[in-house]
Amino acid sequence: MSTAAAPPTPTASDHDGTTLTAALRAHLDGPFGEVREHCRALDPETYGPPPAPLAMDEHRALVTCQLASLAAEPYAAQGFPERQGGTARYGDAVAAFEMLGHTDLSLFVKAGVQWGLFGGAVSLLGTSRHDHLLAQVISGELQGCFAMTETGHGSDVQSLLTTATYDPDSDEIVVHSPEAAARKDYIGNAARDGHVAAVFAQLVVGGESRGVHCVLVPIRDDSGSAARGVTIEDCGPKLGLGGVDNGRLLFDHVRVPRTNLLGRHGDIDDAGTYSSPIDNPGRRFFTMLGTLVRGRISVAGGAGAAARSALAVTTRYAAGRRQFAAPGSDVETTVLDYRTYQRRLLPRIATAYALQLAQHELVSAMDDVLAGRTTSEQDQRQLETRAAGIKVLTTRHATDTIQECRELCGGAGYLWANRLAALKADTDIFTTFEGDNTVLLQLVAKSLLTEYQASFGDLDTAGIVRFGAKLVGGTVIERSSARGIIQRLVDAAPGRDEDVTFGIRGTQLRLLREREEHLIEGLARRLRQAAAPGADAFAVFNATQDHLVEAGAAHVERMVAESFAASVEDCTDDGARALLAKVCDLHVLATIERHKAWYLEHDRLSPARAKALTALVNELCAELRPHAVTLVEAFGIPEGLLTTEMSGTA
Amino acid sequence: MSTAAAPPTPTASDHDGTTLTAALRAHLDGPFGEVREHCRALDPETYGPPPAPLAMDEHRALVTCQLASLAAEPYAAQGFPERQGGTARYGDAVAAFEMLGHTDLSLFVKAGVQWGLFGGAVSLLGTSRHDHLLAQVISGELQGCFAMTETGHGSDVQSLLTTATYDPDSDEIVVHSPEAAARKDYIGNAARDGHVAAVFAQLVVGGESRGVHCVLVPIRDDSGSAARGVTIEDCGPKLGLGGVDNGRLLFDHVRVPRTNLLGRHGDIDDAGTYSSPIDNPGRRFFTMLGTLVRGRISVAGGAGAAARSALAVTTRYAAGRRQFAAPGSDVETTVLDYRTYQRRLLPRIATAYALQLAQHELVSAMDDVLAGRTTSEQDQRQLETRAAGIKVLTTRHATDTIQECRELCGGAGYLWANRLAALKADTDIFTTFEGDNTVLLQLVAKSLLTEYQASFGDLDTAGIVRFGAKLVGGTVIERSSARGIIQRLVDAAPGRDEDVTFGIRGTQLRLLREREEHLIEGLARRLRQAAAPGADAFAVFNATQDHLVEAGAAHVERMVAESFAASVEDCTDDGARALLAKVCDLHVLATIERHKAWYLEHDRLSPARAKALTALVNELCAELRPHAVTLVEAFGIPEGLLTTEMSGTA
Repeated sequence: MSTAAAPPTPTASDHDGTTLTAALRAHLDGPFGEVREHCRALDPETYGPPPAPLAMDEHRALVTCQLASLAAEPYAAQGFPERQGGTARYGDAVAAFEMLGHTDLSLFVKAGVQWGLFGGAVSLLGTSRHDHLLAQVISGELQGCFAMTETGHGSDVQSLLTTATYDPDSDEIVVHSPEAAARKDYIGNAARDGHVAAVFAQLVVGGESRGVHCVLVPIRDDSGSAARGVTIEDCGPKLGLGGVDNGRLLFDHVRVPRTNLLGRHGDIDDAGTYSSPIDNPGRRFFTMLGTLVRGRISVAGGAGAAARSALAVTTRYAAGRRQFAAPGSDVETTVLDYRTYQRRLLPRIATAYALQLAQHELVSAMDDVLAGRTTSEQDQRQLETRAAGIKVLTTRHATDTIQECRELCGGAGYLWANRLAALKADTDIFTTFEGDNTVLLQLVAKSLLTEYQASFGDLDTAGIVRFGAKLVGGTVIERSSARGIIQRLVDAAPGRDEDVTFGIRGTQLRLLREREEHLIEGLARRLRQAAAPGADAFAVFNATQDHLVEAGAAHVERMVAESFAASVEDCTDDGARALLAKVCDLHVLATIERHKAWYLEHDRLSPARAKALTALVNELCAELRPHAVTLVEAFGIPEGLLTTEMSGTA
Repeated sequence: MSTAAAPPTPTASDHDGTTLTAALRAHLDGPFGEVREHCRALDPETYGPPPAPLAMDEHRALVTCQLASLAAEPYAAQGFPERQGGTARYGDAVAAFEMLGHTDLSLFVKAGVQWGLFGGAVSLLGTSRHDHLLAQVISGELQGCFAMTETGHGSDVQSLLTTATYDPDSDEIVVHSPEAAARKDYIGNAARDGHVAAVFAQLVVGGESRGVHCVLVPIRDDSGSAARGVTIEDCGPKLGLGGVDNGRLLFDHVRVPRTNLLGRHGDIDDAGTYSSPIDNPGRRFFTMLGTLVRGRISVAGGAGAAARSALAVTTRYAAGRRQFAAPGSDVETTVLDYRTYQRRLLPRIATAYALQLAQHELVSAMDDVLAGRTTSEQDQRQLETRAAGIKVLTTRHATDTIQECRELCGGAGYLWANRLAALKADTDIFTTFEGDNTVLLQLVAKSLLTEYQASFGDLDTAGIVRFGAKLVGGTVIERSSARGIIQRLVDAAPGRDEDVTFGIRGTQLRLLREREEHLIEGLARRLRQAAAPGADAFAVFNATQDHLVEAGAAHVERMVAESFAASVEDCTDDGARALLAKVCDLHVLATIERHKAWYLEHDRLSPARAKALTALVNELCAELRPHAVTLVEAFGIPEGLLTTEMSGTA
C-alpha cells in the first residue's frame, strides 16, 4: 500500500501495553496528552456510569454530585481566560471534556451545559462587568442554563420569539415569552439545578428590534423555587441522558437590570442607547453564534469517545467469541475472522482513528482562536465551518457505530451491563443537538460558496466564482508540519486519465478532492439560477438541498482524510506509522467505496476499478484483523470504565 | 408512471377517514382485517405503553398483568389446533400479534414467548401426550420459556452444549449444563414468571448422541422458587423491553420423566429405544427448527407495526412543524416540504407499505402450512426461507426507520413522551434475535442454491446447477391472483439492450431480478471452487460471505417488490390503486437507487440513467408529499396508542 514498511507482525503481547500500543496511543493522544493522562486517573467509582439504570431523580442527583466533584479538578478553569479566574488552557479543557465522554455521558452533557454553554456564553458574550461571575461558574456555586432553543424554533434561532425589551423608565430589560411556541425547550440544567439562564431573545431598544441577543435571567431564588414571572417545567424522561435535568422556561414580563445584557457584540449604555461594533445585524448574529463553536467541538469529542468505548468493548468480545466450526474442523471460528464481521467492524475502527486525529487539528485551531493567537474573522469563520463539519461526521459515526456494535454483540450487546445500551441511548441526541446535522451540512456547503456567506439570499455571482480557490487550503487549521506534503502527494499522483491505483495516497486524496470540487461546482451552477430574474428562489434552493448536503459532507470527508494522511506522515514511531498508514488506507478507501455510485456515475472509476476497490477493502480488513485488539487498546480508555460482564466463550 | 390513472388529488378531508383512507386501510389490512379491527378496539388504558418509563420490577409486574388480560381475548387460542384446545386460525393469531406491536412492545415479546415460542414448541414438537398441556398454556395458567440460546451458542444452535441423557434405569431424562458456556441465556419469561422451560439439548440415548431435541423441564415449584438442580439468574436491565423478564438457566443433573421429551421428530419408546421418522440428523434438526418460523414471522410483524407507529408520529409532526421562512416570504415552510426531509421520510413510508403487503402473503402461506392445506416439505422450506428473509428486511427497516424518525423529530423525538424513544429501544434487539440478520441472509442465499440445502459442506455441482429455475416462482407462497401478471409485466418490458424507462413496472421488476440472478450465479461459481480438490473450503466460504449476504438480500428485495406489485394489481378501489402504484414506484425505485453502484458496475444502468433515477425518486417524493398524512392514517393505528405531546408550531 502507500508506505514501504509493512506493519509490524502482531504478537500476543501487543495486547497489554507493548511499545506499539504505547506509540499508537501517544500519537492518538496528540497535543493534549498530558491532560488526557490526568483524566485517565479519575476515580471510576466516582465518575463511572451507574452499574444499573437509575430512576430519573436518583440519576440527576448523582450527576449533580459528580459535577461538584469535577469542579475540584483543574479542567473547568482551563476553559476561561485569566481575567475571569481561569487558566486559559482551552485545548486542554476540551480534551479533558472529551475524556469525560468515556464516563457517564449524562455527566459529560451536564458539565458541557454548565461550563461550555452557560459559562461560554457569559465568558464570550459578556463584557468586563460580567467577568466576576465566572469564578462562581467555574466552582459550580452558580449553576446556569443556556436557553436558546424554543419549542417553535430549533434550527432557525435567528427567528426566536422570546423578547427582551429595554424599559428606559426603570433602566431594566423585560424578558417575555409572547406565545406558547416561544417556550424555551430542552434546556439542560433547567428542571432541577440551574439558578440563572443565559436567555437568547429578540432585543428591542427604543422600539426598534436589534436581533437576537443574550440576557442573564435568574430563574430560581435561593430556596430553589422558580423566580417571579418564570415558569419552569420538566421535560421528563428521555431516551437517554437520564441524569440531565432538561426543562422548559416561560417568562411573563420578567424584569432584570439592563447590565444583565451580555453586551460584547451589542450593548445598551447608561443613557439607554443601543450600539454595536458590528453594523450588519446578520453578521452580528452569526458572530454571537460563533460562541457555539466550542460546544460543537466538544460534542464531536464526546461522540468520538463514546464510539471508541463501543468499539473497544466489541472488539474484545469479537476476539474471544467463537461460533461455528469450519468444515472439517473441531475448533470454532473466532467471529472476528469472518469477513462480514470484519467488514462491519474494522472500517469503523479506522474511521474512529481518522476522526480523532482530525479532532486534534480542530481543537488546536480553537485553542489558537480563543487564546487570541489568531484573530482574523476569516480564521474564526473557518473554524466554525470545520467544527460544524466534524461535529456532523463524528456524531453520525458514533450513532451508526454504536448501533453496529450492539448488533455485532447480539443479545449480550442488549444487556445494560455491557455498556452499549447506555452509550447508544445517551449519544443518540448528538446528531440533532448543537445544530441538526442536516442543517449543519448545508451551512458547511454554503460557507464554501462565499466568504462571509451565511444566508442564502445574499449570494451573488461574484461570490460563487471566488469559491474555487478556497476549497483546498485554509490558513488557521491546516498548520500541521506535514500538511505541505499532502499537496505534494496529490500533485505526484497519476492523473485522471491514467489507471487508478488505490494504494497511492495521493490518488486516494485526489479522488476525494475531485468529488468535492465537482459537487461544489455543480452546486454553484444550480444556485446561480436562483438569482436569475423571475426564478422561484425557494424552489431552486429546495431542489438543490440534497446536493448541498452531499457537497458539505464531501468537503468534510476530504478534510478528515487529509488530516489523517498528514498525521500519518507526522508519526515518529516507525512501527506505529506503518500500522497507521494501513488504517488510513482502510478509512479513505472505505469512504471512497461508500460513494462508489458517484464515482461510477461521473466516470471517475471504471466498473473494473470499482470492483477492485471492494476487493481491496476486504483485503485491508483481513490484514488489519490481527491488529484489531491493539488498535482499540491504543484508544487508552481507562480500564475501570470498560468493564463489562460480556465475555467470549472459547 | 406505471399506471394510467393519476392518484386522486388530496384534500384536507383525506386526513380524517374519507373513502381514500378507508380504501387504503382495507387494502393494507389484507386477508386478516377482521381480527385487526378486533384488536383496534382493545383498551389503550390496559395495553398502551406506560406513560413514563417504569422501574424494571414494576414494568415486569405490569406486563404480567397485561398478559393475563390478553389471555381472555381470543387471539392466543387462534394459534393452536382444535385437538389442543385452540381454534386453529393461525393467520388471525399472527395478525393479532402484529397489532400488539402498536402497544407496549414488552407485552408483544412476552406474549410471543408464552404463546408463540413456548406454546409453539409444545404444540409442534410435542406428541399427543402433550396436547392436554396446551389449554393451560393458552389460558396462561402454565407459563413457560423457550430455552434454546446458550451463552456460548446463539447462531449455531446445532452445537448447543446442554445435554439430555436418557437413563433407562429410572426411565428418566437427565438435563445438564456441562460447562459455563452451556448456560441458557437471554431466556424470556425465565427470570420471574416461567414455570416450565422447553429446553433444547443434545439428546443422548444408549450412549449415542441423537442431536438437538427439546425437553420440558420444570424450573420453578409452585411457590415460585427455583426447582431442585435448576439455577435461575436474572439478565437484569436491558436497552429496552424492560417489562420482559429475561433470565439464565443452569441445570445440574435435573431429572424429568422420559415422556417430557417433545418427541414428534424423535422419540424414546417404553423400551427405551430411540427412533425418528427422519433418518438424517441434519434434516431432523432443521425440521425441528422449522418451529421457529412462526416466531420469525411474528417478529417481522411486530417490527413492521413499530416502524409504522414511528412513521405515523413523525409524519403528523412533520406536516405541522414549520422552520425557516422562504426568501421573500413571512410564512415559515413546513418541514415536510423540504427535499431532504422528504427523501428521509417518504421512501420509508413506501417501504412500510411494501413490507406489510409482503407480510400478508407470508402469513397466508404460514396459515396454509399450519392448517395442513399444504403439506410438502418443499413448501415448508420455502416458507422458512421467505420468513427468514422478510424478518431480516422488516427488522432492519424498523431499526433504521425509527432511528431516522427520532432524528427527523429533533429534540422532541428524544423525549419519552413522544413514543419514539421506547419504540427505538424496544425493537433494537429484533435485528439479532429469532436469528441474527446477517446469519439469516446467508441461510436465505444457501437455500436458493440447493433444495434442502442447509449446511454448506453438502453442496454439489448438480445442486448448484439446479438453482436457476427456482429463483422465480415457488408454489406455496406466490398464490396471489395477480401473481401471473407479474411475469407478464416483466416479459413485456423492453429488453436489457434498450433504454431503461423507470416508469414501467416490468422494467423495475426486471432490474431487481437481474441483480438477484447475477449475484446468485456468481456465488455458485465461486462456491464451486470450494469443492475443488485441495481447496481450503473455509477460506473460499469466508471470502464469499459478503457476496452471500448480498445475494440473500437481493432475493428478498425482489420478492417483496413483486409482492407489492401484485398487490397493487389486486386493489379493487381505483383511487387507492392509483396511489398505491405511486407508492410502489417509490419503494422499488428507491431500492434500485440504493444499489445504484451495483447497476453501474455491472453495466445495467448508464451513468445518465443512474442520474435520472435519482431525479425521479426526488420527483416521486414531491408527488407523494401531499398524500403523506393520508398514507400514515391508512395504517389504522389506534388513536389511543399514538397520542404524544409533540405538536408542530404553525
